[in-house]
Formats: sequence, structure tokens, C-alpha cells
Amino acid sequence: MNFSIVKYIIGYVFVAEGAFMALPCIVALIYQEREGWSFVITGVLCLFLGGLLLIKKPENRIFYVKEGFVTVALSWIILSVMGSIPFLLTKTMTNPVDALFETVSGFTTTGASVLADVEAVSRCVIFWRSFTHWIGGMGVLVFLLAIVQMKGGGSHMNLMKAESPGPSVNKLVPTVRSTAKILYLIYVAMTIMEIILLLIGRMPLFDALTISFGTAGTGGFGIKNDSMAGYSVYLQVVVTIFMILFGVNFSAYFLILRKKFKQAFSMEEVRAYFLIIAASIAVIAVMIKDIYGSIWTAVQQAAFQVGSIITTTGYATTDFNMWPEVPRTILVLLMFVGACAGSTGGGIKVSRLVILMKTVKKEFHTMLHPRSLRKLQMDGHLLEHETIRATNVFFATYILIFVLSVLLVGFDGHDLITNFTSVAATLNNIGPGLELVGPTQNFSVFSNGSKLVLIFDMLVGRLEIFPLLLLFVSDTWKKF
Amino acid sequence: MNFSIVKYIIGYVFVAEGAFMALPCIVALIYQEREGWSFVITGVLCLFLGGLLLIKKPENRIFYVKEGFVTVALSWIILSVMGSIPFLLTKTMTNPVDALFETVSGFTTTGASVLADVEAVSRCVIFWRSFTHWIGGMGVLVFLLAIVQMKGGGSHMNLMKAESPGPSVNKLVPTVRSTAKILYLIYVAMTIMEIILLLIGRMPLFDALTISFGTAGTGGFGIKNDSMAGYSVYLQVVVTIFMILFGVNFSAYFLILRKKFKQAFSMEEVRAYFLIIAASIAVIAVMIKDIYGSIWTAVQQAAFQVGSIITTTGYATTDFNMWPEVPRTILVLLMFVGACAGSTGGGIKVSRLVILMKTVKKEFHTMLHPRSLRKLQMDGHLLEHETIRATNVFFATYILIFVLSVLLVGFDGHDLITNFTSVAATLNNIGPGLELVGPTQNFSVFSNGSKLVLIFDMLVGRLEIFPLLLLFVSDTWKKF
Repeated sequence: MNFSIVKYIIGYVFVAEGAFMALPCIVALIYQEREGWSFVITGVLCLFLGGLLLIKKPENRIFYVKEGFVTVALSWIILSVMGSIPFLLTKTMTNPVDALFETVSGFTTTGASVLADVEAVSRCVIFWRSFTHWIGGMGVLVFLLAIVQMKGGGSHMNLMKAESPGPSVNKLVPTVRSTAKILYLIYVAMTIMEIILLLIGRMPLFDALTISFGTAGTGGFGIKNDSMAGYSVYLQVVVTIFMILFGVNFSAYFLILRKKFKQAFSMEEVRAYFLIIAASIAVIAVMIKDIYGSIWTAVQQAAFQVGSIITTTGYATTDFNMWPEVPRTILVLLMFVGACAGSTGGGIKVSRLVILMKTVKKEFHTMLHPRSLRKLQMDGHLLEHETIRATNVFFATYILIFVLSVLLVGFDGHDLITNFTSVAATLNNIGPGLELVGPTQNFSVFSNGSKLVLIFDMLVGRLEIFPLLLLFVSDTWKKF
Repeated sequence: MNFSIVKYIIGYVFVAEGAFMALPCIVALIYQEREGWSFVITGVLCLFLGGLLLIKKPENRIFYVKEGFVTVALSWIILSVMGSIPFLLTKTMTNPVDALFETVSGFTTTGASVLADVEAVSRCVIFWRSFTHWIGGMGVLVFLLAIVQMKGGGSHMNLMKAESPGPSVNKLVPTVRSTAKILYLIYVAMTIMEIILLLIGRMPLFDALTISFGTAGTGGFGIKNDSMAGYSVYLQVVVTIFMILFGVNFSAYFLILRKKFKQAFSMEEVRAYFLIIAASIAVIAVMIKDIYGSIWTAVQQAAFQVGSIITTTGYATTDFNMWPEVPRTILVLLMFVGACAGSTGGGIKVSRLVILMKTVKKEFHTMLHPRSLRKLQMDGHLLEHETIRATNVFFATYILIFVLSVLLVGFDGHDLITNFTSVAATLNNIGPGLELVGPTQNFSVFSNGSKLVLIFDMLVGRLEIFPLLLLFVSDTWKKF
């Protein structure tokens, strides 16, 4: 392990977080909230610690996958710990585990909350809480890659790999740095578009900003106690559309920008993603028609909830915990499917499922034609053996962590559906589950021990397992 | 597809089932039950149909994996359909779907029942019901391989592969036929041992026979309405031990017979199996101590239930649906683990999980040491790439079928835990689940549609997915 370069990059992360804290300070100034000082203090602390780490330049630039994973994992832990300080200083929460839960939930774009009454919290804190979604959505190291000229030669690709969701990373353009820039440009542009469309629907600016941050990062922290239910149908439809758009593989947008429409619309993952969404909306709408009176309201409600769950955003306009069993089951399944790779969404990712289906299909083919040598392809390219193996290992570890978490959370004594869906909702970075953690509830029912398990699940889910687990392997910490 | 040889082997299956029907006839004679005639009629019908298929010798002996899979799948469907006729003729059931459910549940050694009052059913029918467990446990085609000199050169290994549980088949001795013989000898010997030990504990002969059939096949049909709760502690302990023993890979017994003790006790799968059992019993016993007053009763009850669930037998001595959440969750997890490969138990199988863990461990190793070329090993042998890939594909398909089944069963409108555990209990060939299908309940709450889904799940679970699914691939039915 090359500690010197890991330390150096983490220094940048501290500085970036310190800089981000300026935004809630501005909000506090506008609304004249004294809580703003908490952000000033934490921000200065971040800048100071970052400065300390940046003094000494790294001795050597060796930077392999291992270093990439460890840097990303440590960065996210530090981001979360520092980001939770304002919650405590402003006395929004008194329990440090709660503050950490809320911050991790923010950065990992989960959106699971322990706050019972969001509307009582001061504006600058709510702004920071939603802004963590926006940072976490695209990733803080991708952000650093885009704006800072970092030291460390091979570091860029390995950082990108570790932080970006999905089984493999698409380099859009030859250099990693430009790829990161393009991704952030698309991200910023789409966020602004959503803000404008929400403002046109007469949403107050503060709401438009925070809700767009939550949509863009597919986070889902509500700023009202009823999440999105109180907004007009127009606003709900705008959010539905943008949730689904932010769940699309960003490579598709890049192709569209390059006017390669045919290539963009023939991406297998994106097609599967829209197919799953359409089918789910159709089935659910038919089954909940009687609850909402008209088929159109049913479709609109189904679309919002399906878009919210599959993209792992987690906003809600209705209490889907009260829906019949089949729609409820579909939503639980969508929790696992997740959004596209290379989007801001969480979950297992559609591309992994597509790869899985292809593997199964090939197995049948091999059984019937033992001498055939067909290779797996995706979007016309050969699927690398590495990618297939990593996908399989991902599944195995995913299930293992899932099972262990359900077991540990079970010690709190809640019902099996609460336990099962609370783990599903955090590991897949969604937010709400069913029963005690349903969309009208929150996660404060859990003990500190269970909250720590769920915090771990959120981080493991966002970083897609390996970076975080690698921290627990002793070999990782060997000097060289 | 070489249809002529498939037809020919299925002819043998018919004849074998006709011969098996003689046993319930004898039981009917002893207890002077008129229901015996139903077995005479069905038996004669089986022999007649079998004879028809055996008249014409197969034209050619081409017999690949494909033919093996199709033969096994069709054989099991035919076994089940013919085996369900006596339930209808004796008027034990009036709904043909119920009769099929009960028979498939028997042959697949699931043990899920639609009968509310077992004690009201006549002896010969109960005997047949339990005997199907015993046939299904080791497999009917393995039985044929052991006793009949079948035509078709390469057919033996491919039949064995398709019917035996686990990711790969151990040939104990050079020829398949002798392997099948040895397996059946161990099976018969252990069954007789259990019968004797139960008789020593003063269990009536009829009970000893039927319960031993259920234990040996890891089936679990109870012959009393309270399953095993009414029997003495001695009898419960005997059944506990034999359930666990029948879940062990039979290769271990073969090694013990050959006096290769060291090799037998160092089998990785068997060690993992006992480790999981011991750990589960320990945790559960501590958590249910207060319910049963003493720690020893708690251990005994925990051991029975753990042994029953992990081996996918499904007998019950207590209503574990009433246990606290963690023990309940552990039992649900054990449902998926299942017994060892090469045993009579169902589930995913311990060896598949061991392979999975090894794959994950290797992935971490590769991340840390990218240039290492370590290969996966099991029991000192290299794990073939084929086996690893098949294991991964097995998991993917397993999850897919699981998810689809939960969704389809959901249309009945029962709660999520009932749906989830009823699919888990049938796909893993266990029997009881939780809530509406808990150990004191039965599967009659489901609609015919759901029962058909669960019938499919039981067959898919017993034959380990591929043989049955291959029937639905159109390529399979091409003549050559």
C-alpha cells in the first residue's frame, strides 16, 4: 500500500468538503439562521485538516486498483464523519450515530432518514442534507478528477473505477479527466433544467433546489413530512421524468450530445431499463386503479413510485405500503434491480442483470450444442471474462452481506418485512422500505447497533462492495 | 433429440412405478382397506403403458447431456402424474391439482401438504405418500441404473448427472452402475438402521416405516396432524440424528466404508455443513431458552428444527413460527443453504456455497495481488472452470425463478412472508414455511394457479433447474 499518495488525495477530499460547506453558510445568511456558524466551524476544520495532509507531497506515484479502492473507501468515511458534525453542532440531533446515519444516507444517496419532523429543521441544515445527495450522486472523487490537476500518474482510472457505479467504466473520451468533466457537465446541465422546470410550476426556489439535488443524485431526502405528496401533479410529473432520466447510463447522453442517436437508443442496458419501467407501471396501474378512482391517476402514481424505487431515489407521493400485495412485491423487486450503470442511481444495476441473463442463455445454448463456442456480447462488443466473473462475485458477496445484515438487524425484534426491506432499502441506496420503514415512517425505530449495520450497508451499496470490504483484509495494510 | 431412447427409458420408469404400487397394496391387505384397489388399478395401468413403450428397442444409442436432462425431466413428470391417480381414486382428494401437488411434494421430498387432517386418511394411502419420499430421495433413475441393465451406451453418466443433486457428480467407483448400486445399498442400510432404532423406542411398525422413509428421503410428510411433536424425546432425537446424517454427502459414507476415515472427515463440504448446524443450534437455543424452560430442551428443540430445515426434511416438533425473529430468520436462511451435494436433501447445497465463498476470497486475493495465478481448489482437487460457471449460472436462474414465483403467488393476496416462505419451502424442497404455511398449517390456502406455480418450483428444485427448464427451449425438440 502506498500510504503517501492515499493521504495526499484524502487531503483534497477534506478541502473539497470544506469548500462545499460555504453553500449552507450562504443559505444561513439569506434566511438569517444562527445555525450557519456550525457550518463555518466545520468548514474551517475541514480546510485545516486538508491543508495538513497536503503539505507533504507524495513520495512515489505507485497507484494500483488497491490504492484506488482504499482511497475511495476512506474518503467516503471521512466525508460522512465530517459532514455529520453540523447536525450535532446545530442540535438537529443529539445522538452521534443518528447524525452519522443521516449524513451517510445523504452522501450515499439513500435518503433514509431518522428525522421524524423535517419541517422543524432550519433551512441551512436541510440544504446541506439535500446537497450531500448531489455530491454523492456523481461522486466526490470524480468531482476532484474533473476540477483539480491531481498528482499520481495511474491514479485517475483506478479512482474512477472504484467510485463509479456499474460492472465496468466507460471512458467516454481518451483521458479520464475529460471524461469526468463531461459527466459533471451533463450532471450540472440536467440539474439546472429540472430546477427551471420546477420553478415554472411555481415551486419556491429553495424547494426547487433541494428537490432537484435529491432527484439528480437519486437521493430522496424529502423536505416536507409527506415527501412529495403535497406538490401539484405537474411538479410530480416533472420529478418523475427527471428521476427516470438520472437513472439512465450517462454514456447515452454523451452519445446523444455527439448526435450518435442510433447508438444511444440501441444501448442494451438502457432499453432493458425502460422496458422494466414500462412493464412495472402497467401492471401496478391496473392493480391500484380502484384505489385512485381513475386509470390516469393510477398511472401517474405508479410511474412516480416505480421511477422513484428503480432509480433508488426514494421520494414518495403516496403510501405504497398500503398497496395490494403484487404492487408491493414489484416495488420490492425493483429495489434490487436498481438503475443503469454509469448513472447516479444505486441497486444491483440493470447491466449486471442483463449480463446475468446472457450467461444463463449461453449455458442453455452450450447444453444443447456442446461444441459451440459462442461468446457473450453486449452492445456489439465482446463481454470480457473479467467483467462476467466480477459480476458473479458481486452477486455472491451482495447476497452474503444482505443475509448477514437481515440477521443482525433482526436482534431488534421487529417483523421480518421491516428487517428485510430496511436492509434492501439501505444496501440499494433507496430510502423507504415497507411496514415500520414504509414511506410515511422513518428509521428511528432501530437501535444504535442496527443503525451502524445499516450505515455499513449504505456505504457498501454506494461503493459497490469491494472498496469498503478491502479495508477489512489485513493484506491491504501491508506497506509494500 | 434421440426420441427413441428417451421413450425406451421412460418405459422402464412406468414399469418401476407399477412395481412400487405393490407395496401399498400389501399395506391395504394387512389393514383390510378397500382403497387398495386404487393401487392395483393404477399399478396395472403403469405396467401396461410401460410395456407399450418397451416393445420397440431404441434405433440408436446416441445419448448426450441433452437426452439425459429431457429423460429425467419427463420421467419425474410422468412419475408424479401416475402417482397422483390413487389419491383421486381413493377420494382422498377431489381436486386433481391437489393430488398432483401432494404427489410432486412427495417425490421431490418436499413434504408440503394440502391435507388438513392426515389422521383421517387410510393407511395404504399414507404409506404410498411416505414411500414416494423414499423413491424420490435417491432418485428413480439412479434406482433403475442400479438394478436394470439398461440399453444406451453413454446414457448412464448423463442420467446420473441430471438426477443427482449438487454441482458435480462423484463417481465412487469406475462404472456408473456400481456407483448407483453402492449409493442405494448405503441408503437402504441407513433406512433399516433408523427403522430398528425407532422400533426400539416402541414406535409402532407402520409409524417407524413411514417416518423413516420421510427421514431418508429428507421429505417430511407427517403421519400425524402435529407432525413429530407427539413422539417421545428419544424418538425425536433418533430422527434428529438421522435427518442430519441423510443430509451428508454419501461419498463420505463410501469413504468410511473403505476405512478412509481421514479423507471422509476432511471433506470441506461436510465440515462446513456440520459447522453451520452447530452454530445455528447454539444461537437458536440461547434465544429460545426462556420458551422451553431449560437449556437442554431448547437445544433438543433447536437441533430438531435446524436439522429438519437445513436437510430440507420439514418435520416439526414445535411451532417455530412462534419463535422470536432471529431464530425465525436463521431458519429461513437455512432453507436456502440446504444439505450437502450427493445427499438426499434439497436446497442450494453447502458445496455451492463453499464454491461461492472461495470465488469471493479469490477475487479479493486478485485485487491485492493482481499478478497472482492462484486456482480454486476443493478437497485438494482443482475446481474445474465448468463447475464454477455452472454454479454461478445456477444461482442466477435460481434467483430468477424464485422472484417470478413470489410475484405469481402474490396474486392470491396473502402476506409477503407467506408468499416468500412458501416459495422458499417448495423450491428448496423443505415443506413448511412461515405464517400461513407455518408448520401447523398447510398449503390448501392457495389457489389452483398458485399451486401449479409451487408444483413447478418443487420439480425445478429437486432436479436443480436445468433439466426442467430445458423442456421449454424449442431447440431441445429438434429431431437432430
